[in-house]
Amino acid sequence: MSFNLERLQKKLGVKFDKPSLLEQALTHRSIGNSNNERLEFLGDSILGFVVADKIYQKFPEADEGIMSRLRANIVNGDSLADVATSLRLGEELLLGPGELKSGGRNRPSILSDAVEAIIGAIYKDDSLLAAQAWIEKHFANKLNALSTQAAIKDPKTRLQEYLQSRGEQVPDYKLMSTTGLDHNQLFTVECCVAIINQTFTASASSRKKAEQKSAHKVLEKLNEQ
Amino acid sequence: MSFNLERLQKKLGVKFDKPSLLEQALTHRSIGNSNNERLEFLGDSILGFVVADKIYQKFPEADEGIMSRLRANIVNGDSLADVATSLRLGEELLLGPGELKSGGRNRPSILSDAVEAIIGAIYKDDSLLAAQAWIEKHFANKLNALSTQAAIKDPKTRLQEYLQSRGEQVPDYKLMSTTGLDHNQLFTVECCVAIINQTFTASASSRKKAEQKSAHKVLEKLNEQ
Repeated sequence: MSFNLERLQKKLGVKFDKPSLLEQALTHRSIGNSNNERLEFLGDSILGFVVADKIYQKFPEADEGIMSRLRANIVNGDSLADVATSLRLGEELLLGPGELKSGGRNRPSILSDAVEAIIGAIYKDDSLLAAQAWIEKHFANKLNALSTQAAIKDPKTRLQEYLQSRGEQVPDYKLMSTTGLDHNQLFTVECCVAIINQTFTASASSRKKAEQKSAHKVLEKLNEQ
Repeated sequence: MSFNLERLQKKLGVKFDKPSLLEQALTHRSIGNSNNERLEFLGDSILGFVVADKIYQKFPEADEGIMSRLRANIVNGDSLADVATSLRLGEELLLGPGELKSGGRNRPSILSDAVEAIIGAIYKDDSLLAAQAWIEKHFANKLNALSTQAAIKDPKTRLQEYLQSRGEQVPDYKLMSTTGLDHNQLFTVECCVAIINQTFTASASSRKKAEQKSAHKVLEKLNEQ
């Protein structure tokens, strides 16, 4: 399938002043030296900035670690390949014979690279504002679905990762007591961590929640130190 | 040392509408939860884009790998700490008592983070154009010094890395002949690579140059395959 400017512009919702940029954005390196890799490099940096900016605005309370994880939820190969698939870009790709035969049109990495290259091409053809608008439109679902809850790891996981990264023993959780009647029970758990000479007790309506609460207490203590 | 808006604006060559953004950009996390990490995250993405854009324009022939290496020459901790040092930002940092005592004012990672946070603050206070202009001014020397030659590894290194990454034997270089008189000698070298059933011969004015040329020929052959 050769380059069809009209059909492609329709799919993307963008009109190009320099159609050669768009053609380049769809050209995989299996075609030759003049391919989409440079535009992809540029587009990747634009996407990184635009999504960082969105997250900065949308999550004023998120710290850097959470912002990084939120961005990684959007800027990753699978997510970009999703966008390419929803735009039916596979059939527009310009591939060498080897890639064509081996199913290159459906290869996530090739689709994902093409999306970044298209972002670069929109920027070079028009402006950063145009690239930004295109990203906001085509990543709208993903941007709207972001939540800090998904980006925050639970306290038990964070505590375990913290200790392991320092070569320390993993925490030990002990169920100390269960009180109350069915469906209204209270579980009390104790968390012991070798590097702190103290135990942390927490109670909750389930054993799992009590463990999380006790891990949270340990993390707070470690943060103070 | 506390926050001195006038002195800092003079050093940076920027006037802020919202000085609190600039104060935040200088505030290390050792002060507390309201620190420069969010602005740093934003500034890092802006720097990545602005430098990618510059490199795209300045090196129209560079492929993606070279562009990445060129950018890494500019966007790295040492380079950012250099910029901070030349602006004498160390004395403007707002640090907690622990960091102050342990020499935080001169710590490259803290200085480097502050530069990224300042870029983020200029963007939030004004515009991307303002941030871009600031980067172009304060990274001018580094941007001007970039050359693709420095980013391209020599052929012998590339050939060796290529073969090692595939678990293949390293190449074998043999000096085949030396002809000519002193200061006008010609060295002829043969490069043998186990995975290609062919030898590659090259001549040059030094043994080292001849080896590089022969490695280049092997790389060309491998590229064709």
